[in-house]
Amino acid sequence: MGILVVGTVAFDAIQTPFGKVDKCIGGSGTYFSVASSFFTDVALVGVVGDDFTEAEASIFKGRRINLDGLQRVKGEKTFFWSGEYGFDLNVAKTRDTQLNAFASFQPKLSDAQREPDVLFLANIYPELQYDVLKQAKRPRIVALDTMNLWIETKRAELERVIREVDLVIINEAEVRQFMDESNLVKAARGILALGPRAIVIKRGEYGVLMITKDSAFAAPAFPLENVFDPTGAGDTFAGGFLGYLASRSEMNDREFRRAIVFGSVLASFTVEKFSLDRLREVTMPEVQQRYREFRSLTHFEDFDV
Amino acid sequence: MGILVVGTVAFDAIQTPFGKVDKCIGGSGTYFSVASSFFTDVALVGVVGDDFTEAEASIFKGRRINLDGLQRVKGEKTFFWSGEYGFDLNVAKTRDTQLNAFASFQPKLSDAQREPDVLFLANIYPELQYDVLKQAKRPRIVALDTMNLWIETKRAELERVIREVDLVIINEAEVRQFMDESNLVKAARGILALGPRAIVIKRGEYGVLMITKDSAFAAPAFPLENVFDPTGAGDTFAGGFLGYLASRSEMNDREFRRAIVFGSVLASFTVEKFSLDRLREVTMPEVQQRYREFRSLTHFEDFDV
Repeated sequence: MGILVVGTVAFDAIQTPFGKVDKCIGGSGTYFSVASSFFTDVALVGVVGDDFTEAEASIFKGRRINLDGLQRVKGEKTFFWSGEYGFDLNVAKTRDTQLNAFASFQPKLSDAQREPDVLFLANIYPELQYDVLKQAKRPRIVALDTMNLWIETKRAELERVIREVDLVIINEAEVRQFMDESNLVKAARGILALGPRAIVIKRGEYGVLMITKDSAFAAPAFPLENVFDPTGAGDTFAGGFLGYLASRSEMNDREFRRAIVFGSVLASFTVEKFSLDRLREVTMPEVQQRYREFRSLTHFEDFDV
Repeated sequence: MGILVVGTVAFDAIQTPFGKVDKCIGGSGTYFSVASSFFTDVALVGVVGDDFTEAEASIFKGRRINLDGLQRVKGEKTFFWSGEYGFDLNVAKTRDTQLNAFASFQPKLSDAQREPDVLFLANIYPELQYDVLKQAKRPRIVALDTMNLWIETKRAELERVIREVDLVIINEAEVRQFMDESNLVKAARGILALGPRAIVIKRGEYGVLMITKDSAFAAPAFPLENVFDPTGAGDTFAGGFLGYLASRSEMNDREFRRAIVFGSVLASFTVEKFSLDRLREVTMPEVQQRYREFRSLTHFEDFDV
């Protein structure tokens, strides 16, 4: 039932041209689960140290997020990421990564966790992704994210997982890198040939391009006058996208397109403040209002000549 | 009546990762006028040398393009541009520019040319743009393009023209550069504050974003498996965009949006082959078919929850 996500719960230190935060909540699992909980029940599988207190865990409270799978390791610290953005907010420069409690993370799904409707394998080691995938009883949809590091260092392991998922949700540069092909459409088709039914390409401030065997759908990012911190935008997108899909009885092209727009809507809120400061205060009516603004942003009529 | 465009007619030498051409037809006026002639009558004002023969001029033949304003200077050569693209086809590296006949170009509009419906000031010296603008009796719409070089070296002259046009059609990087502002929406609003009613931002493979005082419209670029040569895509876009607008009785938001899509459609053909090799063979039914494919690429429904 609902979504199972395995990903990081983290502390981040972030510097952008607009400010600096030394310690805030982050992690792919965090952004993903908060975003998807707008639409469906989410079980979050991850690990934190004992520096992740109840105060921090309040980010998940009052939402449809089950934390039975969030291990807390005594004597360890929580995963830590430090990154910096220049004026080109599309590119993060990693200053430091400390795996901490995540280093020995070996998720074991409980019986209750083995039958999700949708499974999201956030950007973690491909071997861990594969291991979780094998523990789950075949969900309706399995999706994964990954990163340049795994494409470089764990190519075979990554390809093994990609061959078994339905959706690949990755950045544009990673699509090109994985296929060593500069043309994005050709590169996407190369990934589809491995098995996935769709590839959802994240393009930062340029939006999202979904390519399937027989269709393509492009959605812009919402034009914003204030973008403070792009951290977590991709995971927020994936959460809104898969959360919406998990809430629907059908998962056809029509619903995939709506799902991409809902994911884009949620991501557009995330970047408006640091960390999850904006996302955590957003209401469903605000989400629906911005969905309508996306329609207005992209709508055009057929020609009448 | 129709469109008047002042711009370059040129020979180009182009190298891309997919091939190389030592001498082919190019120039902003050339791409623009061929594209806009799909929709309306175009008067092309420009200059060539006597190396631009009847064989080259055949690119304009059989189209709604009036060449009365295309001067031919004896003993001079035609404007020449040499450029190179790496695997990132969004960025052209200029190897050489030879103004040749264009160096002493001082267009004088004839009485017949002074009353266009739409005036397009392609990327030439801002002083020349201003001079032509002042010769024209107030058209329904005046639009201009420019480039980084004029923003750097002729800032005041450029701003003087921008204050008198209705539309600015420029690249994303130029919007940021002109306003010295990294946020694109803020930068666009800064340009609108100078007077134009709309700014149409060209984003290469990411499409187009139009911003007006009270609305925004985003169109993706058409995803293509074969992009051979991006030269002229921006001028082709401007030609299709303004050509369509000039053909319509109303110029409201609905028509602006359709115009942007028609411009994007024509640009998507231009990049499929070198020079104007693809654009010159395209038929109106092909244009209309790709317009429909753009609708399918971008369409999504309202949510029903």
